[in-house]
Amino acid sequence: MKEVIYVSLDIQRLKDKYGNLTRRYAKEEYINIQPIQRGGLLTPEAKRVLLEFGDGYSVCDYCTKGKLVNIKKPPIVDFLADVATFMGMDVVRPTAGSRMAQYVIFNVMTEKGDTVILDSTAHYTTYLAIDEAKLHHKEVPNNGYPEFKINEDDYATKIEEVKKETGTLPTLVFVTHVDYSCGNIVNVKKISKICQDYGVPLVLNGAYSVGIMPVNGKELGVDFLTASGHKSMAASGPIGLLGMQEKHSEKILEAASIKGEWSGRQFLNKESHFYGCPPVYGLPIITLMASFPRVVERSQPEAWKEEVKKVKYFVQEIERIESVKVLGKRPKEHPLIQIETPAFYEVSKTHKRKGYFLSESLRKKKVVGVFPGSSKRFKINIHGLSWEKLNAVISAFQEIARENNIPIN
Amino acid sequence: MKEVIYVSLDIQRLKDKYGNLTRRYAKEEYINIQPIQRGGLLTPEAKRVLLEFGDGYSVCDYCTKGKLVNIKKPPIVDFLADVATFMGMDVVRPTAGSRMAQYVIFNVMTEKGDTVILDSTAHYTTYLAIDEAKLHHKEVPNNGYPEFKINEDDYATKIEEVKKETGTLPTLVFVTHVDYSCGNIVNVKKISKICQDYGVPLVLNGAYSVGIMPVNGKELGVDFLTASGHKSMAASGPIGLLGMQEKHSEKILEAASIKGEWSGRQFLNKESHFYGCPPVYGLPIITLMASFPRVVERSQPEAWKEEVKKVKYFVQEIERIESVKVLGKRPKEHPLIQIETPAFYEVSKTHKRKGYFLSESLRKKKVVGVFPGSSKRFKINIHGLSWEKLNAVISAFQEIARENNIPIN
Repeated sequence: MKEVIYVSLDIQRLKDKYGNLTRRYAKEEYINIQPIQRGGLLTPEAKRVLLEFGDGYSVCDYCTKGKLVNIKKPPIVDFLADVATFMGMDVVRPTAGSRMAQYVIFNVMTEKGDTVILDSTAHYTTYLAIDEAKLHHKEVPNNGYPEFKINEDDYATKIEEVKKETGTLPTLVFVTHVDYSCGNIVNVKKISKICQDYGVPLVLNGAYSVGIMPVNGKELGVDFLTASGHKSMAASGPIGLLGMQEKHSEKILEAASIKGEWSGRQFLNKESHFYGCPPVYGLPIITLMASFPRVVERSQPEAWKEEVKKVKYFVQEIERIESVKVLGKRPKEHPLIQIETPAFYEVSKTHKRKGYFLSESLRKKKVVGVFPGSSKRFKINIHGLSWEKLNAVISAFQEIARENNIPIN
Repeated sequence: MKEVIYVSLDIQRLKDKYGNLTRRYAKEEYINIQPIQRGGLLTPEAKRVLLEFGDGYSVCDYCTKGKLVNIKKPPIVDFLADVATFMGMDVVRPTAGSRMAQYVIFNVMTEKGDTVILDSTAHYTTYLAIDEAKLHHKEVPNNGYPEFKINEDDYATKIEEVKKETGTLPTLVFVTHVDYSCGNIVNVKKISKICQDYGVPLVLNGAYSVGIMPVNGKELGVDFLTASGHKSMAASGPIGLLGMQEKHSEKILEAASIKGEWSGRQFLNKESHFYGCPPVYGLPIITLMASFPRVVERSQPEAWKEEVKKVKYFVQEIERIESVKVLGKRPKEHPLIQIETPAFYEVSKTHKRKGYFLSESLRKKKVVGVFPGSSKRFKINIHGLSWEKLNAVISAFQEIARENNIPIN
């Protein structure tokens, strides 16, 4: 064999660069209000499994059936049944995030050229999944600034439009349960009633709802429900879940039909749309499992009621800062919050640190996660903060206002 | 909101079931020779980052460009450049395993109905990827038991066959660098010469080679090179890498063309075939980065030479047990080893633990990773074992032979 020499890869340089990766935000002293991170902070139980299950393919020690979803030790089989109950869906499969779940659904349940409907507040990955499956689409509008609200009845209008324009019903209707921008919660039941009347399957993206608030797909009347472990279920991830009604499972879980033309090799126990075994075989699924009991607890109606109370309190207190306004539907319920702060923006114009003054001032007060450089409009997430920490966050914002002569009402 | 009650999800039962997940194989006292795990065992550096980067989306703290591959802190940008150098490819993207990389390549680089060529020793995920892209295929045969060897020249024959039968050249040629069954190493240069002569792009699956032995895509003459972090690069994962020649990057990395029909929303900075941001945003990419310096070191020609020496020594010693035979091409070079053990199989027939006697006897001697129940033919992997541990593994097998009156020559 000819010897390969990596001239430019000086080992010492690599060690200096990658040998001591650290993360300031992870320190206990900080309160993290990063919009996409709060729901994915590990539970103590998930932290405990990191080392034992850290190695690649760590859940495959006792894989006797050649299939991740059949592994009994650790109890993946039981977990998938429990998480199906939790989501109120008949069958659940793990995926590389809610995004992979969406790609699978659009890819498998449609034909190139079909038309689907989605809400205009959908996550960018929904658009990408539709693009990747080569579909036409129609958007359910939102009412723009400041509410960005979807009107659930518009789904009927859009279905009618598709019917009129294409001669057939849309193949799928897609609903974002909680939008990633303002955290608006949609009334899914209203939409599922419409879809059932037309007989069009409904896909619900629960990336910001499953694991945060009570969500039961059966009760909501959806055909598919996707969830995000790293976004909302205290998992290290990336990992998501694809929940489906039993009637769709045959198609979604179908085996590859390929047969080696020379070898005759077949792979009938592998679920083709999930790469055979879905790419979660290690910490993604193990941390999701370890956190699951707490995630179930925190998603119960009583716990959620307390979360909503905190959200409302936060909105009330943050809006006492002059000019500050929380966007989205009111009353605000979900802990993902978009805030408009024109007074802070004014400060940034003459501040030597420009827009960075806000995130840096917050960090000095041990609050992290506001996008560096943003001072005009930004998102935060207060999910799971204790009252004490919530008050610390509010105080931090109010103190920064005072320090910059912004009145507090 | 109507209250959802999860009647069947008793929290105490969930805590009992998922609250204390443990992994016997991870204990230091054991030597793990599991075929798919050895190359993914974490380095000390990777273990050190588990806690700080354990939370979901942990690498996104300073994502100023909305794109994982542009993150500078932690230094993902630099890492992707370094790993491209390491792989000898122009551009590299992280993926959810080598399997996702394969799906992306087949999906993007072909049209439905095209014909591709693959080797008959390919991993099952290669077949699934071809099936998912709705392609025809032709297999390069292998010479069957006991070598299962590919003849590199057969690629030319197969290209000719496709040309004759379909009137056009195959769209892609796929080569498995090291097969997952016997660990045979293929002469890639011989095949790339053929592909270049015909002008057909070559995809090389380096899941068992990149991170284990010297691999340089440019030198090997391949268009695409996939790698596996959790299989061969000491990453927690799941994570893989898709390396490509610059000329293919425009197509592979293209942005979604979708534009919201009502909203006008576009996502031109998102790489559509990778879900926008590939699902590695946390421990998968961080552990891969933390382990990278050691992975580069262990893949250098000198280190690999030492590995091959150990492999040859192991084969010699294990075959001293009567009837035992290592399958695959000889001399054996790769540490992924398939062993045939008819004498152990004979023992299992009358043993009260049946085929389980072998894995259980090994476990008593602190060697784990032989598939539970297998005693006739099984795979192991001895990559990275010190001479001392290698001898301990050999002794364990030889002692079990002696205990069961199997002669050692």
